[in-house]
Amino acid sequence: MANTDRPTALDAGPEANLDPDMQAYFAKCMDKLGFVPNVLRAYAFDNAKLRAFIAMADDLMLGDSGLSKLEREMIAVAVSSVNHCHYCLTAHGAAVRQRGKDPELGELIAQNYRAAELPPRQKAMLAFAVKLTETPDKVEEADREALRRAGFSDRDVWDIAAVAAFYNMSNRLAAAADIRPNREYHYLAREPMDVIPSRATRGAAVDDRRPAPARNPQPGGGAPARVDGRPAWGILPLS
Amino acid sequence: MANTDRPTALDAGPEANLDPDMQAYFAKCMDKLGFVPNVLRAYAFDNAKLRAFIAMADDLMLGDSGLSKLEREMIAVAVSSVNHCHYCLTAHGAAVRQRGKDPELGELIAQNYRAAELPPRQKAMLAFAVKLTETPDKVEEADREALRRAGFSDRDVWDIAAVAAFYNMSNRLAAAADIRPNREYHYLAREPMDVIPSRATRGAAVDDRRPAPARNPQPGGGAPARVDGRPAWGILPLS
Amino acid sequence: MANTDRPTALDAGPEANLDPDMQAYFAKCMDKLGFVPNVLRAYAFDNAKLRAFIAMADDLMLGDSGLSKLEREMIAVAVSSVNHCHYCLTAHGAAVRQRGKDPELGELIAQNYRAAELPPRQKAMLAFAVKLTETPDKVEEADREALRRAGFSDRDVWDIAAVAAFYNMSNRLAAAADIRPNREYHYLAREPMDVIPSRATRGAAVDDRRPAPARNPQPGGGAPARVDGRPAWGILPLS
Amino acid sequence: MANTDRPTALDAGPEANLDPDMQAYFAKCMDKLGFVPNVLRAYAFDNAKLRAFIAMADDLMLGDSGLSKLEREMIAVAVSSVNHCHYCLTAHGAAVRQRGKDPELGELIAQNYRAAELPPRQKAMLAFAVKLTETPDKVEEADREALRRAGFSDRDVWDIAAVAAFYNMSNRLAAAADIRPNREYHYLAREPMDVIPSRATRGAAVDDRRPAPARNPQPGGGAPARVDGRPAWGILPLS
Amino acid sequence: MANTDRPTALDAGPEANLDPDMQAYFAKCMDKLGFVPNVLRAYAFDNAKLRAFIAMADDLMLGDSGLSKLEREMIAVAVSSVNHCHYCLTAHGAAVRQRGKDPELGELIAQNYRAAELPPRQKAMLAFAVKLTETPDKVEEADREALRRAGFSDRDVWDIAAVAAFYNMSNRLAAAADIRPNREYHYLAREPMDVIPSRATRGAAVDDRRPAPARNPQPGGGAPARVDGRPAWGILPLS
Amino acid sequence: MANTDRPTALDAGPEANLDPDMQAYFAKCMDKLGFVPNVLRAYAFDNAKLRAFIAMADDLMLGDSGLSKLEREMIAVAVSSVNHCHYCLTAHGAAVRQRGKDPELGELIAQNYRAAELPPRQKAMLAFAVKLTETPDKVEEADREALRRAGFSDRDVWDIAAVAAFYNMSNRLAAAADIRPNREYHYLAREPMDVIPSRATRGAAVDDRRPAPARNPQPGGGAPARVDGRPAWGILPLS
Repeated sequence: MANTDRPTALDAGPEANLDPDMQAYFAKCMDKLGFVPNVLRAYAFDNAKLRAFIAMADDLMLGDSGLSKLEREMIAVAVSSVNHCHYCLTAHGAAVRQRGKDPELGELIAQNYRAAELPPRQKAMLAFAVKLTETPDKVEEADREALRRAGFSDRDVWDIAAVAAFYNMSNRLAAAADIRPNREYHYLAREPMDVIPSRATRGAAVDDRRPAPARNPQPGGGAPARVDGRPAWGILPLS
Repeated sequence: MANTDRPTALDAGPEANLDPDMQAYFAKCMDKLGFVPNVLRAYAFDNAKLRAFIAMADDLMLGDSGLSKLEREMIAVAVSSVNHCHYCLTAHGAAVRQRGKDPELGELIAQNYRAAELPPRQKAMLAFAVKLTETPDKVEEADREALRRAGFSDRDVWDIAAVAAFYNMSNRLAAAADIRPNREYHYLAREPMDVIPSRATRGAAVDDRRPAPARNPQPGGGAPARVDGRPAWGILPLS
Repeated sequence: MANTDRPTALDAGPEANLDPDMQAYFAKCMDKLGFVPNVLRAYAFDNAKLRAFIAMADDLMLGDSGLSKLEREMIAVAVSSVNHCHYCLTAHGAAVRQRGKDPELGELIAQNYRAAELPPRQKAMLAFAVKLTETPDKVEEADREALRRAGFSDRDVWDIAAVAAFYNMSNRLAAAADIRPNREYHYLAREPMDVIPSRATRGAAVDDRRPAPARNPQPGGGAPARVDGRPAWGILPLS
Repeated sequence: MANTDRPTALDAGPEANLDPDMQAYFAKCMDKLGFVPNVLRAYAFDNAKLRAFIAMADDLMLGDSGLSKLEREMIAVAVSSVNHCHYCLTAHGAAVRQRGKDPELGELIAQNYRAAELPPRQKAMLAFAVKLTETPDKVEEADREALRRAGFSDRDVWDIAAVAAFYNMSNRLAAAADIRPNREYHYLAREPMDVIPSRATRGAAVDDRRPAPARNPQPGGGAPARVDGRPAWGILPLS
Repeated sequence: MANTDRPTALDAGPEANLDPDMQAYFAKCMDKLGFVPNVLRAYAFDNAKLRAFIAMADDLMLGDSGLSKLEREMIAVAVSSVNHCHYCLTAHGAAVRQRGKDPELGELIAQNYRAAELPPRQKAMLAFAVKLTETPDKVEEADREALRRAGFSDRDVWDIAAVAAFYNMSNRLAAAADIRPNREYHYLAREPMDVIPSRATRGAAVDDRRPAPARNPQPGGGAPARVDGRPAWGILPLS
Repeated sequence: MANTDRPTALDAGPEANLDPDMQAYFAKCMDKLGFVPNVLRAYAFDNAKLRAFIAMADDLMLGDSGLSKLEREMIAVAVSSVNHCHYCLTAHGAAVRQRGKDPELGELIAQNYRAAELPPRQKAMLAFAVKLTETPDKVEEADREALRRAGFSDRDVWDIAAVAAFYNMSNRLAAAADIRPNREYHYLAREPMDVIPSRATRGAAVDDRRPAPARNPQPGGGAPARVDGRPAWGILPLS
């Protein structure tokens, strides 16, 4: 039982007396998600480390950017796919399913973004993120230029790079410590949508998608499924 | 619309006039699964090719073997994870979820089997399958010996190898032709279980697992969820 | 002595009572080749497995296709070169030597097809097969397009992919089971030809090649060498 | 001229009006190092991003840990060597030279830590960091166990992982943005030492090393060399 | 016609006026082999380069060593197999066939030495050579120790390393310049032997091998085949 | 103490009675460099091996060529960076620092030549050398053509290939024998220059560079620093 409660294979120390800001953050997680993500529990042995991780993650994933929040989650998942990171694929796969309102998109990026037939902008974005993951030493001006040609500003390129780089860190910490994802992630946002994104709109806006043909509606139709009494879609994904 | 109907990026020819045995097989798929797996539709331009593929796949995955059907599906998924095969991860990921009666196990193997803390037998099995996938030229007697020490007979080793080798073929055909998985696979066997497998029993028998704590029961409790009016669990997975 | 008789390192079971069609197939091998290929002997512990393997191999390598039989053998050898498969390089290297009537071509493809200065069509074909072997997850529409530009139909692309995929399977089964090639393959079609293919015609038609200069004719000139009293060239290669 | 002043290839935006804490940090850099590290200048377009990076870097590299500060710098350099990161090899190579009081040690780790014949503790530490860098998906319990056997606590393992993971992030951001190291790093701590560490003491404590034989003493003997009037050794390395 | 006469894809300059020692060397090649190896013709634009290459190659392959000449050729071929070097696989594959008096051994090493079931000494030797080829940065004391345990002296280890290193050079020069092997190599030492080496004696001494069963004797039995009137076996292989 | 005197981990034999030409060569090293490079000491157990190595190295690095001596050293370092060769990065890194009169250039190439923003000619040169190092089997006519387009003659291509190939040999011998660089190399040519090469002139001629701004002049200004009483710049680098 202790086993399932320990979020990692490392016993880095007991949970610290959380500082008030960190207590508030954990409370917000419980309120919005119904659980504290295990990566945060793993960091909770030390307030400074926990705070630094949250500050960086939230700035990257939720702060101002020319990239949509969905796009940033797509980068997280594409990078984690290369690194075969169980934790991040589970947690951020759920985030892509939620943010994209597209349960299949999360799977697609987690498996192989090249099969997703994404719009050129997102394809260029993920190609850069994956090259940066696989062969960082071979990234050159031509790679930055390809992003600019795809419509990204230099600041966008920074953000793509920063998110991809951050998950190269997180993936490795999760692997080294064997951080186990909260089981709830597995079940979030799995319901079929009313509206099936065509290949042309996948990963882009969620408007004007054509209705999904011939699939068994969940009771309650396209309404967000509920997990533990909270809506599964529209929940703020946290790190 | 034709786009979503075409199961691959290749137009290898119109569907052949299916021979009676192949017609019967497709009908069985419709009856049991509610759809014909797209890999079969992709092969349907030629009766001989379709028949040969089905014969080999069914013998490997459903025929007599010292490996359980779940174990064979686990091999399929672990190999497909290395090869990042969208089709096979989707279709056989569903099969692992179904056969293991464990929605999380499919994800685990699709992401990184090493995070699954499987029993030694299955860990050895997947380690062999993955080495055979990544560096077939480096497989040696010591690798066969490791399987024998883990309790496998020589015939079992053959079966592990044959299944791993088969998905190295299928993954590549799916990648080359961009075979797209039927969308239904995404939604099969996603429901939380009543009984959570402990790490010790994961991937093994489904009996005597302890009850799942504190998760929202589906209406109808642990009963198989239903997709299109058919039970999602216990359905015969087909290639 | 048992050692040299066992065609693999695995004792998967005694040879089955072969069904009549399989008996007939083995007899055809003895008649045409003078031996039963060891990969078939390795499979002979089970009629269903043996039949499925033969059905798929013969359809792929001998069935109707826009690819010549030589081209399909070239794919088999190029894939096996990447995977360093002793069995397939030996058996299908012999097939390329025979079918191409060019003892050096088999060596070239087995060593490195890039050194062969093949015609653009075959170069594109092998480049695709090798990419599919090395990085199946990175095959994209651009790769299919390159084959179409080289003159291949979508059906041809399927066939290239299917043959390359099949040998990625066979290579791995041979590696896992340590299937040993029949020693006869080593000696088949080794004789110098009368006519040396120029780089321009290599791997293509065997007509109008210029006479080979200054090489010691075998007794009997360019006539097919004979192995065990049967002609070594023109023999139907079997899987 | 602007060219040499721009610390990266990306124009992510003008330097922000730095918040007082960030202004103070930059002033501390000028005071202690004589320059602001270019990675900080690269981040200076945004206070939140800059602060988050500094918070994480300083906690990891200067905070409490069972790892010495030199050991943490060694990890930074070993990881950066795998990733061929110009920025981090330059900046943290200087830090290893300084902290180790061993100009050659920085080179050794930057080139190939395996040539350094480090004590078993540090060899295990770097082997883990490099495996985590190269194949994070293959890190398993056995790897953690190897560190425990080498004398590390679970908290130490966390720290090794966190530092290695952090430089896998930094390396990638530096590569993506082409962050150029301040030229001063190249010249820091290059002077031969009075005392040559034997292979046995390399990377460990700096006491009781035997005197360096037969090398030209700098004026002032073993005293720290001076760069721009500040001592080059003993300077606090910053990120 | 010029095409087949040019031994490489580079026109590095006309053949130099060969110095007397180099003229004598070429004459010796003609006398013993019937041709001048193309790698020497490729070098012949410059006497100094030609002489240096010959000096190093002959010292390594023919000079005093604890390794037999066959073993050194086996290293050359195993290294060239990793690097897929057409020139060296062809020329040194012939040398292994000749020196081992075993036409199949050359194929085995060229394809995958692991399939050859060599004696432990030679397996260790080739494992070291291949690791040094694939990941020179990861060779450590443990690798040298493995060779010592297999019975090699430190001088032998040097020789294994020097030969493996030399062919990593030659392979790359051949690849870069597209040096084409003399066609005669393809046909050397292809005849079946009277005596089949068992797996136990393969690659070792050629004595006391049991007679080859049931294979078509060449006219003249086990006598060396003749190429251009010279015996094909027992010929001094040259670089 | 013996430990630091032994230049390698292998005891390949005592130093031979050096032949007069080799004695003279060692004396020249002492005179010009102040030490005998350890790679030569490692070879000194055998006059023939030592002579062959020196002959090839000196011809390649100091003989007539369309490549400058600096360019050849840059190739040596770029190759050694891929192979993480401690010996060659140390010795030839020093040579690039000296020959380029640019202490930072040596670091740049040793770390990652792509960060150096070299002129197109040298970028093409190093890209070829690195590809030849990493994937020699994939070098094709297109790669030679790229060099010709960058202004290199076929003879230049040969020289680029020959130098890159040679260091693929040397790197591996150094790794296998653990050849340790003379410690003096670490300290050679580390002094800041008066004149900072702009990115445009880096690696090219050393004339007309603009004066270095704001850096602490060494006593004696831009004059060559002195190591052991000999000038550190302008010294003939030896192998």
